[in-house]
Order: sequence, then structure tokens, then C-alpha cells
Amino acid sequence: MRKAVFLAVAAGLLAAPALGQGQSPQALLRASPKADWRPIDPANTLYMDLPQGRVIIELAPLFAPNTVANIKTLVKQGFFDGLAIDRLQEAFVAQWGDPDADEDKARSYGAAKKTLTAEFVRPNLDGVEFTPWPDRDPYALSVGFAGGMPAARDPKTGQAWLTYCPGMVGVARDMDPNSGSGGELFAVIGPPARKMDRNLTVAGRVVEGLPLLARLKPGSEPAGFYKPAERTPILKVRLGSDVPAAERKNLEALRPDSATFNAIAEAKRNGADAFYRVAPGGVSLCDAPLEVREARP
Amino acid sequence: MRKAVFLAVAAGLLAAPALGQGQSPQALLRASPKADWRPIDPANTLYMDLPQGRVIIELAPLFAPNTVANIKTLVKQGFFDGLAIDRLQEAFVAQWGDPDADEDKARSYGAAKKTLTAEFVRPNLDGVEFTPWPDRDPYALSVGFAGGMPAARDPKTGQAWLTYCPGMVGVARDMDPNSGSGGELFAVIGPPARKMDRNLTVAGRVVEGLPLLARLKPGSEPAGFYKPAERTPILKVRLGSDVPAAERKNLEALRPDSATFNAIAEAKRNGADAFYRVAPGGVSLCDAPLEVREARP
Repeated sequence: MRKAVFLAVAAGLLAAPALGQGQSPQALLRASPKADWRPIDPANTLYMDLPQGRVIIELAPLFAPNTVANIKTLVKQGFFDGLAIDRLQEAFVAQWGDPDADEDKARSYGAAKKTLTAEFVRPNLDGVEFTPWPDRDPYALSVGFAGGMPAARDPKTGQAWLTYCPGMVGVARDMDPNSGSGGELFAVIGPPARKMDRNLTVAGRVVEGLPLLARLKPGSEPAGFYKPAERTPILKVRLGSDVPAAERKNLEALRPDSATFNAIAEAKRNGADAFYRVAPGGVSLCDAPLEVREARP
Repeated sequence: MRKAVFLAVAAGLLAAPALGQGQSPQALLRASPKADWRPIDPANTLYMDLPQGRVIIELAPLFAPNTVANIKTLVKQGFFDGLAIDRLQEAFVAQWGDPDADEDKARSYGAAKKTLTAEFVRPNLDGVEFTPWPDRDPYALSVGFAGGMPAARDPKTGQAWLTYCPGMVGVARDMDPNSGSGGELFAVIGPPARKMDRNLTVAGRVVEGLPLLARLKPGSEPAGFYKPAERTPILKVRLGSDVPAAERKNLEALRPDSATFNAIAEAKRNGADAFYRVAPGGVSLCDAPLEVREARP
């Protein structure tokens, strides 16, 4: 037997309602009302074009306002165009920026800052909507979503931060916490890398094209750095709002405070189906249904 | 700046002791006494040779005795030799077995069984040493290690099971829970896939060569199945004990109840260093230091 059914069910290809527990996540998504989706603002996205295709990143100004502003300044100047993916460390991160940053031929930062004060945490959540995720988390006592991204908070200090789930984009830095700028970024391409929480500024989240980064080969230098010939060139990086409308994707994200999000979360926690008969009872923060899709006209 | 330090520290390339918290995980491993390591029994391993190299799997007879026995029968018969990796679903699993299992030309099971009663859980842990992992887990109230693998238990029912962390090897099946045999297996190549806990028999854990599977291309058919031309051939699968000694690897695994394991776990939880200044306070079960290395002569 080829065990094809496992695969079909696991991939959500079977549209049949789950047994006894209402609908499957796929059916819930299909039936979701428009109001359960948040438009992703093109002015708050990066379109990074690689030879393999396009990676789209939603930025995180609620948690890293200065970093996001600096990245936008860099992008507007064409800073990243012609630079490279310069590192892939297996099951960890892909990183990009200026491979010659330490050399005389380093790309100019122009009007952008070369270093910024770290934006690892927010001191509080004043003015930020936080939607709790009820399941246990190994890394934080309270987790949830803010600005459409996975987040955590410390009930004692009030501090809040975004969490390094797969697809999260961070700001590379040197030993000095205040040495990052956004001119060199990385994305989590493997399992959650929560050790980085509160230690590296989160700049955003890949909302499309993560597999294009994840499928690149590991670099052969220590820590997955590429030798020059191994690098993948970055064709260009633009703000989504600077991409011609015909070429732009009209993306929307499932709101974490929506009925659809909660129904899918509940189906993942406690919904059995004909194949998965034992429900886990809980779901990891990084497996929450932060779905992104192209908006229907 | 090229942010090279981040990379060095993240990869554990800096040998300097962590600040204020004793030694780094790398230094602890180097200093570990021999007694903290468990020899991996070659008779309990599979050596799967692919054109890309070798994948070594430790089997899980404590949790799946009948499945492991059946897999050994299949392997002894050469069942897998010349079969193929027939599926890779991105960020989920790579799967292998007989792509023609449903056809007339299906490979014979010989003396092995074509289906087995599911071994999803053990009814209890009688005779099995369980080492608890103290950190919160989203999927189970009690987690730890048994037989050197990540595991969970239900304090109410006493049931115990192995958990689908990266690298865990499972038994593919059809809709019927008792339709698996071990003749078609899969490995978790992406993030933890804990939804499968208690729903698919765990056959073992990849202890070497997981990147060889993870780096294969996703299949272009639904659920990541390969078209025939996309498949990776399996050259052969042998029990480690049937591999000539000169070609065999003398592997050993860090014992979860050892002082070294606990010191590394504690360093991951609460150890700060010059780069990671904020410690997470907890670590996910799937990030526990289940280290495997080649034994020193």
C-alpha cells in the first residue's frame, strides 16, 4: 500500500468535514467572511526579487519603528539591489545584505543609519492590541499575537516582543546589541528559533516565498556563510507600494481575533477527523493559523 | 558590518565560556565524561544509503516492538534496496518505500507482515525509564525522554508515546490505524509535527544524515509526492549490525539523565552569554540536547 490517504489528509486535500467536530481548517478558511481578513498594507511590505522568484515580507513597525524606517530608507535608495543572500545555516536562518560590508567596497548607507539602538522589546503594549494564545509555551508565560505576528509578553514587567517562529525576519548584528541597522537581515527557515527572542530585533515576517529561501543550499563556510560563488544575487528589493499595481499582490492576513481564526485553532487543538483520531489538546504558538492569501476581487 | 559575530556565536564556534553562567554547551560536550554517553546498538539501527550519502536511523523497539521487528525482517530481505524516496512535502516530511506498492509490480513483503496493529502509544511505562523535561509543552502535560527519544505521557491514563520532533521517523498508513507495516516510512524534515503524536506509529529517529533528506526537492504532485523521474533511489538499507565493521559508525548518544545533558539544558534555559544576553527561561522539548556523536576510540 502506498499510504496515499495519510498524505492527502495531512495536506488538507480532502474536503470532507471533520468527524463530529464541525469543519476542517480548509473548509473554515473557504467559508470565512471577508471581515475576518486584514488587508496587508503594501507600504508596509518588502518585495525581494531573487532569480528563483519573489519573497514578500510584512514589516513590524509596532515593535521596531526605527528599524523599519531605516530599512525603508535603505530600500528607497536601492541599497539591496544587486547585493546577495550571503548565508544559509541549515535548519536555522537564511541571511542577506552586503557581503562586502567590511571591505572598502562596502555599499553606502546614504541617508540611512549604519547602527540603531536595539528594538528587542517594547516596554509595554500601550496602544497595541494583543490577542492571547491560550496554549502553553516553553519560552514565555504569556504568548499571543500583535500586529498580526506571533508575540510574547512578560506579565511582571509588561514588556512585549515578537517571537522567532518560522518565517520571522530579524536584524543581524555584531556583539554590541546596538550594532544592527536593518542593512543585513535574516529569516528563520527551519524550526522555531526562539533563543533569539529578545536578543535580536524582529523586523517583520515573510508572508510569501519562504520556501524560496529555505530551499537554498547551505553555505560551505562556518555558520553557513557562502563563498562568493555560492551566493544568490538579490535582483532588487522594493517597498510593495513602489511596485506597479499590476505586478503587486493584494495580500490579506487572517485576523487572530476573528471567529475563523479561533475556529481553526480549536479544530487544530481538539478536532479529530477520520485520519487524526487523537487531537493534541493544544497547539504551539508557531503553529497558529496566521494564514495569508491573495484577496479576492 | 557583516555581523559575523552573530553567526559565530549562534553556531557555537566561539569556545569562550559563557559569561557568568559557567560553560557553553560546546565546552560542556567537550568536557563530558564517557559515562554520560550511551552506545547506540548497531543491531538497533538502519543504514540507508542514498546517492547523496548515508542516513542512519535508531529504531524505537520500546514503543513499537512489532513494527521494529517487521522493519528488520523487511530489511534483512533487502526489501528497500532499489526502492525510492517517493515524497517530500515542504516543511513536513520526506517519505520512502515502494512507489509501486499499489501496482501489480509491488515488491513482495516475503516473511514480513503487510499490516500491523498500530503502536501509537504504550499503555504504561512499566519497565521503561522516563526522564522528565521540566519545561512547558503545548501538546502534552508531561514530556521527557524514553529510550533516548523525546516522549510524552498522560498522567491520567498512564499512556506514553514518542513525539514527532524533527528527525523522528514514522510509519505511513492508510485511513485504517492498523494499516501500517513499516514498509513505508517517513521522517520529519521541518518543524516539529506534533499533530502526528499518537496518530502514527513512531519507528525511530534519524541520528545522522537528516539534512540529506531535508535537502531533497519538494515533489510536484499533491502532498509532495514525486513524479517517477523526481524520485531519489534508495541504494540499500541494512541493519547497522550487518554493515562491515570498517564501514560502520560507532555512534553514541548523550544520556538524558546525565549531568552533561542537564548542564547543557540549563545553559540553554538560563545561560546568558556575551551575545545572547537574555535567556529564554525555558526550552522546547524538541530543542533538548539529544546529541549524537561518533565515539572516540
